[in-house]
Amino acid sequence: MTRYLINFSYDGSNYNGYQKQKGLNTIQGKIEDALKYINNKDTKFSASGRTDAFVHANNQFGHVDIDVNITENKLKRALNSLLPDDIYVKSAKKVNDDFHCRYMVKEKQYIYIINMGEFNPIERKYVYQFCNKLNLYKMKKALKYIKGTHDFEKFSSNEHKEKNTVRSIYTAKIKKRKNYLIFSFSGNGFLKYMVRIIVGVLIQIGSNKMNPSDIKQIFSGDYKFKYKKIAPPEGLYLNNVKYKKI
Amino acid sequence: MTRYLINFSYDGSNYNGYQKQKGLNTIQGKIEDALKYINNKDTKFSASGRTDAFVHANNQFGHVDIDVNITENKLKRALNSLLPDDIYVKSAKKVNDDFHCRYMVKEKQYIYIINMGEFNPIERKYVYQFCNKLNLYKMKKALKYIKGTHDFEKFSSNEHKEKNTVRSIYTAKIKKRKNYLIFSFSGNGFLKYMVRIIVGVLIQIGSNKMNPSDIKQIFSGDYKFKYKKIAPPEGLYLNNVKYKKI
Repeated sequence: MTRYLINFSYDGSNYNGYQKQKGLNTIQGKIEDALKYINNKDTKFSASGRTDAFVHANNQFGHVDIDVNITENKLKRALNSLLPDDIYVKSAKKVNDDFHCRYMVKEKQYIYIINMGEFNPIERKYVYQFCNKLNLYKMKKALKYIKGTHDFEKFSSNEHKEKNTVRSIYTAKIKKRKNYLIFSFSGNGFLKYMVRIIVGVLIQIGSNKMNPSDIKQIFSGDYKFKYKKIAPPEGLYLNNVKYKKI
Repeated sequence: MTRYLINFSYDGSNYNGYQKQKGLNTIQGKIEDALKYINNKDTKFSASGRTDAFVHANNQFGHVDIDVNITENKLKRALNSLLPDDIYVKSAKKVNDDFHCRYMVKEKQYIYIINMGEFNPIERKYVYQFCNKLNLYKMKKALKYIKGTHDFEKFSSNEHKEKNTVRSIYTAKIKKRKNYLIFSFSGNGFLKYMVRIIVGVLIQIGSNKMNPSDIKQIFSGDYKFKYKKIAPPEGLYLNNVKYKKI
């Protein structure tokens, strides 16, 4: 048995998210179908974390234990020949048996892209077509309240009832390129919907419907955050994952 | 009856090209379906020219004659509410009855995008995933032979048996952005497959399989151009159309 670390990318447009669910089209499902063929038996594939339906990944990571004798490059090629063309394996790398692609994550990086200009049908599945101006100055001011270590429970779905909802955001940036805003976030971990809710709140702030300092009130529970403004999935990309050791 | 000039964009991924064909999914078909509903009768829509299956348009233009009384902005909104989300009307503008969106074209602009880097599943329908290095110096040298007025018959499909295959290319450029090449061409008109065959030949030159000066031989008929190397449709965009007068 050899454990392999798999670096892969995907277009999430056609999937009900990363995680395998009976009867649904999922990234994990497609990868496990391919691995079953290569490993000659049902084979579990673990990823660094889930992504929601329609969310993309530039660099997702996962690990798998393979019993058959296969080189790193042959495993990469075998997977790519079996996978649909919206999932691509960039590399397969032998790792120690005690490596775990989820427990050993040091940092995750996400990006979120917004088009403030005219609706563009060509990128409708890859960029949030907000099509309105946003106040960049106010949003950048708000990033200061997002950065650092906080209990992000209010910035997440309670769906999984995570016990520990404290996370550290290392970097939070917004770049402007013509009519596009590219948000980037890095941190030690992200809760379900966390990036999309943060972006949703930033959009509220950029639209002058909230103030940057309201974020403090959200954390403290003083802000009447009646419904969670969640930015749509198509603008979100899992951009990279860094590990403690490989 | 009022004639309107329509500026629109589309993601060609899901279409068998611009031109209406019985039983096939086409851009023209979708637009005429919407116009029939607005104009209360079968309504012909004319575009500046066709685009092939899977080819995109950032700015395509067409005209239509409407009998019902409707403002420019309402026509735009009515079309967008009826069209699928991969076709978008940017504007509708009243024009003189003698305006013709095809006969009065002064200049057309195309772009073609190639990824020389690693395969990217997210852009597989929008950028040609060539995934190999190309010699930019040689390709730029070759552009000099493409520019100007030539008989481009050898750089086209003979499918439509056009009598006049002489066209003028005003500009031909290649920009490099990281691992991407963005080709742009402008001219007074383009034959069927012309941009894709030019790009296909440029790729041959950039791959050191042909020399820049071989283009002269193709024009003169001396180069044994046995099969036309045609670049795939997904990298091609009709970028803009300029008119003599509007």
